[in-house]
Amino acid sequence: MQRIEIYRLPTASPEDVSGLTALLDAGLINPSEIICVLGKTEGNGCVNDFSRGFATHAYATLLATRLSVTRAEVEGRVQFIMSGGTEGVLTPHVTVFVKREVNGQARPGKGLVAGIASTRHFVPEELGTMTQVREVESAVRAAMSDGGIGKPEDVHFVQIKAPLLTAEAIADASARGQRVVTHNTYASMGYSRAASALGVASALGEVEPGALGDEVIGRRWDLFSRVASTSAGVELSHCEILVLGNTERSASDLMIGHDVMEDAIDAAAVRRALASVGCEEARGLERIAGVYAKAEASPSGRIRGRRHTMIDDSDINHTRQARAVVAAVIGSIIGDPMVYVSGGAEHQGPSGGGPVAVIAHRA
Amino acid sequence: MQRIEIYRLPTASPEDVSGLTALLDAGLINPSEIICVLGKTEGNGCVNDFSRGFATHAYATLLATRLSVTRAEVEGRVQFIMSGGTEGVLTPHVTVFVKREVNGQARPGKGLVAGIASTRHFVPEELGTMTQVREVESAVRAAMSDGGIGKPEDVHFVQIKAPLLTAEAIADASARGQRVVTHNTYASMGYSRAASALGVASALGEVEPGALGDEVIGRRWDLFSRVASTSAGVELSHCEILVLGNTERSASDLMIGHDVMEDAIDAAAVRRALASVGCEEARGLERIAGVYAKAEASPSGRIRGRRHTMIDDSDINHTRQARAVVAAVIGSIIGDPMVYVSGGAEHQGPSGGGPVAVIAHRA
Amino acid sequence: MQRIEIYRLPTASPEDVSGLTALLDAGLINPSEIICVLGKTEGNGCVNDFSRGFATHAYATLLATRLSVTRAEVEGRVQFIMSGGTEGVLTPHVTVFVKREVNGQARPGKGLVAGIASTRHFVPEELGTMTQVREVESAVRAAMSDGGIGKPEDVHFVQIKAPLLTAEAIADASARGQRVVTHNTYASMGYSRAASALGVASALGEVEPGALGDEVIGRRWDLFSRVASTSAGVELSHCEILVLGNTERSASDLMIGHDVMEDAIDAAAVRRALASVGCEEARGLERIAGVYAKAEASPSGRIRGRRHTMIDDSDINHTRQARAVVAAVIGSIIGDPMVYVSGGAEHQGPSGGGPVAVIAHRA
Amino acid sequence: MQRIEIYRLPTASPEDVSGLTALLDAGLINPSEIICVLGKTEGNGCVNDFSRGFATHAYATLLATRLSVTRAEVEGRVQFIMSGGTEGVLTPHVTVFVKREVNGQARPGKGLVAGIASTRHFVPEELGTMTQVREVESAVRAAMSDGGIGKPEDVHFVQIKAPLLTAEAIADASARGQRVVTHNTYASMGYSRAASALGVASALGEVEPGALGDEVIGRRWDLFSRVASTSAGVELSHCEILVLGNTERSASDLMIGHDVMEDAIDAAAVRRALASVGCEEARGLERIAGVYAKAEASPSGRIRGRRHTMIDDSDINHTRQARAVVAAVIGSIIGDPMVYVSGGAEHQGPSGGGPVAVIAHRA
Repeated sequence: MQRIEIYRLPTASPEDVSGLTALLDAGLINPSEIICVLGKTEGNGCVNDFSRGFATHAYATLLATRLSVTRAEVEGRVQFIMSGGTEGVLTPHVTVFVKREVNGQARPGKGLVAGIASTRHFVPEELGTMTQVREVESAVRAAMSDGGIGKPEDVHFVQIKAPLLTAEAIADASARGQRVVTHNTYASMGYSRAASALGVASALGEVEPGALGDEVIGRRWDLFSRVASTSAGVELSHCEILVLGNTERSASDLMIGHDVMEDAIDAAAVRRALASVGCEEARGLERIAGVYAKAEASPSGRIRGRRHTMIDDSDINHTRQARAVVAAVIGSIIGDPMVYVSGGAEHQGPSGGGPVAVIAHRA
Repeated sequence: MQRIEIYRLPTASPEDVSGLTALLDAGLINPSEIICVLGKTEGNGCVNDFSRGFATHAYATLLATRLSVTRAEVEGRVQFIMSGGTEGVLTPHVTVFVKREVNGQARPGKGLVAGIASTRHFVPEELGTMTQVREVESAVRAAMSDGGIGKPEDVHFVQIKAPLLTAEAIADASARGQRVVTHNTYASMGYSRAASALGVASALGEVEPGALGDEVIGRRWDLFSRVASTSAGVELSHCEILVLGNTERSASDLMIGHDVMEDAIDAAAVRRALASVGCEEARGLERIAGVYAKAEASPSGRIRGRRHTMIDDSDINHTRQARAVVAAVIGSIIGDPMVYVSGGAEHQGPSGGGPVAVIAHRA
Repeated sequence: MQRIEIYRLPTASPEDVSGLTALLDAGLINPSEIICVLGKTEGNGCVNDFSRGFATHAYATLLATRLSVTRAEVEGRVQFIMSGGTEGVLTPHVTVFVKREVNGQARPGKGLVAGIASTRHFVPEELGTMTQVREVESAVRAAMSDGGIGKPEDVHFVQIKAPLLTAEAIADASARGQRVVTHNTYASMGYSRAASALGVASALGEVEPGALGDEVIGRRWDLFSRVASTSAGVELSHCEILVLGNTERSASDLMIGHDVMEDAIDAAAVRRALASVGCEEARGLERIAGVYAKAEASPSGRIRGRRHTMIDDSDINHTRQARAVVAAVIGSIIGDPMVYVSGGAEHQGPSGGGPVAVIAHRA
Repeated sequence: MQRIEIYRLPTASPEDVSGLTALLDAGLINPSEIICVLGKTEGNGCVNDFSRGFATHAYATLLATRLSVTRAEVEGRVQFIMSGGTEGVLTPHVTVFVKREVNGQARPGKGLVAGIASTRHFVPEELGTMTQVREVESAVRAAMSDGGIGKPEDVHFVQIKAPLLTAEAIADASARGQRVVTHNTYASMGYSRAASALGVASALGEVEPGALGDEVIGRRWDLFSRVASTSAGVELSHCEILVLGNTERSASDLMIGHDVMEDAIDAAAVRRALASVGCEEARGLERIAGVYAKAEASPSGRIRGRRHTMIDDSDINHTRQARAVVAAVIGSIIGDPMVYVSGGAEHQGPSGGGPVAVIAHRA
């Protein structure tokens, strides 16, 4: 029976692996049981953010040494999902997910389970299309299976790292006579997140079969997943997926819950997500093991009826601003800026909002 | 007896004066009774933010026409305090302060009063020095007098717009053999805010006489005002000051209260400020007429013990990020992003925190 | 017979009209003879650049006063074409174009002539489409006629200011069930420049009739104008056009020539453009009255076979970098950074390059 | 007798070591003979540029594997000098310096020689002070000795990588009661470059003994080196130094020359530097093996008498813009954007200018 443990480790810089090194040295973690390293790194979170790749490089190098395998082999079995951008109060850190097979009985009630999977590599012209949606959909199902999750309603968070388009990738596609979904590299991140999120929604039955098609990707905001959290990066060309849920067959000391923010300042949704795992602002916050949320600048250009300027701001990309907002809201409620907030919530929660999940120690 | 009225007007762009134009056309405001236009404009809020000057230009032009005087004359009698930067959920808007002399009795209890004053113009080498501190100190006293406020404890908010150093200003000082406080133009904004804030602290007796000197400006964070809110801009070379307080001699339908945020996610302080004027999150929010706060990236590089990256971020200046954070916290509490948050809180509240004031309709 | 005079005036800030004020005060310019103010202003040159609108506001206000008409009337008869972005060595300045009707004979040989025209206002969904192409095409013909230019080969520079899409404009179109060409506001500038340039190309017969269609706009880089220079801004919703050329029927002391840069460091093309009006690097540079060029980051991601990173840079938009490059190249050749370089050369010269024009005093 | 070889290798991303890997695999380079990897990486070149550290990490990892030593050991014997920022046409690449001991006679005439050295580690309060100046001075002498260069006039380029101040470093110093030279992290880069450059000037006798002191660092621009090129980064806390020169005792096929640009568009100086090694624009460019230059935004705010806006630009740091300018000028002359241009030339060449060096194959 699986037991999921998570370790949140502050980092002093992208390549800082001292926290995990200490845990490995102390024998508290078996390197072969690590399934995912989910990080917030301190780059711009946009196209040319190398803090993500640097962190992946450093963690993979560490684990390669400890497991006496190549870095490529490590990257083949562990999901390194690095989300860039620690604007505002966000603090750089990683969460290490460990999955142990333990004997004995499950704890009564539902507890945290986790599964991982990856898609095949994509060519540039597939990004932001139904091809990506379908590949992600399959991989989400594979990850659910890997996590022992049978029912969609038991899934509370699906974290995906997806590729993006660079100038070189666009030129490559053009040279082959292929057409990419956009020539704007920053905008390509939104398309990749969008297609990934619809893949989740499709796998979990959150959208009608038949409702999807290339033309709805990044357009039809009424189609969305309530648990998808997708992020794009230059450091990979496939999608890496982590599915988190609760089942009766869990030996974990942890559980997960979620809710959906209607907009970037929806504090009530954050409180509901906390309450779903038994945490309240007044008491129980010490049981929080992690908060994970998506943020976006409302595409309507308005929030609570007021005009915002994030989308028209050509100096700071809107995903950077949205992260600062949602992290501030969550941080002000739980009293801790060590939260995971990723920017760009296309088809992840309603337009302008996004999912928020909480992992907590079971009471 | 004075009666202060405030009008919050959303703007579609820096030069949008349609809201005030409509009020003037409808006869709801007498242009000669306007004492201050306090705005959040949508530039970068840093050195080369021309949205501030553009707004001032447009509002002064409008009032010049309505008052049949020159723009210069308008700028001599009305404070145009434009604070740039509407990162995150902040919405561009202006607050027009109107001061009417009314006959009859004061309303029972204390009500809102306001006074304005300006310093003389500064030369570049005076910025961020005790010269600026002393000039601001005198002007704050003049503004208190103008507002009919005798006691420092009746002052709840002092808004100041101050100058900054440009490359041209630095070169000018150098050519005259003078030394400026910093050669970094963005950093000069901090020094100008710092000196202005210490001027307020000195005028209100918040620091010991004798505690001040050039060497403490921008260094000794234990010296601060609990009500100062200072902002720097390229569009002026003197300081403009607006003092807000409550006195028994007020015919206003409004009152003001304040508190001090210990850090950028100090939601409790926001709630205390709201409570000080009888507003609670659960009820009474509709009585809010305006919230005014300062924001800063903690100079220690830490918030609640967690490392933040705002100060090391060379792509987005830290004041821009801090505004997004504090506005998100306040907006999530009051359910409205139309708040005034200004970045850079040197000597304004404790290090990493800042004052927050609320104007509300009296019950 | 027309005589075109141009006055290049450095500006200390976007609203600095002191140079033109002095010329008007001295009687050197008749305000009613001004046809265009072409400026480089010091904003970001992207969507939220208010330095352009601020400059327009200030110059229009000045001329309204001098002509005793409203600002709207001034804007109806004078083209205010403000191009934002003075990265690198570029210096903020305006060029005032004055068109005088003079009696007597033309100077022998061809001399500078100029014409202006505007399109109707566009709705958001028309931006970047054939509708914009066709409207610009008609207006270019009108401007040629206004300038007395009959032959396309006599046209050496067509400067256009065009609109862009904001979040509000996109939301407006969506609300009406209309689809805009892109949801990325920065990318919309490229589409608007592209359609405007193809309008020029079509008017001048630089592309085959029938070669154009919505699908080639921003895609088929082999279709381009060799004289178009188009710029987009938030401050207008129509296109303003200035056509410059040489004809025999000119009383001007000036002439214009042009060439086409194949890429951003094509110094040879700059020298050819200079030579076309009789200026060489070694001598004759003092006869230069103005240099006007377009700049862009090669969409291929390569320049002279080397990878550049402008398109993948999410911190600095590529148009900002391209301006710095081309202005440096031209400035290093003519020894003066007071040049007009505008960013984003879609369908303006070959992919990665752009037109460069020189106005010089006739020998 | 030493023979210096250099290999310029384009990189597809900061961690791209494929070029060097291929050379090692082919046996063209002996890993134990590499003394320096000098790179242009594609980050922002400012405080939070992790592309530099990522490149160092990747190259050190590669060499550690090939030399069967630890990464730390590699970093102890090879200088990894990564300069961030490839704005404009600059292309990411590294130059690998190989130093071979060869038998036999020197080639007639002077040829390229190289030496390296490092300073001790610095504590934050030492940055930008005479302590840094003196340590660098000693290390430059050590590097000259290592390179077999006895006479200062034989030194043509001194490349230094120096540390900077982060928020954490400043807080650390403050906690120990120490005062740092500036609280602005970006500005600290300038102080570190300045002190390093004066260390070079002192070592080479370019400034009077006794002319230096804390108060001249970053202030007295008339004190400067004509061959120093200093760069700051977050990835180290000491200085790494590479000295390049020509001597009679060289078996190299290469030689080096230099000149000094008076300002950022001083094309004549570039041509003189090229001519000093026998290359002309018209012919001989194919013999160029590398061009190395410093760039800065003139602190006066003026270039050729025209106002520039780089220093007042709060959106793009001035070092980023200056790099784009100088690289464009050089690239337009030699027809190749693969040049090394580093930003911030404090005490490196005259104010607003900087050294430019050329390495070329001997005729």
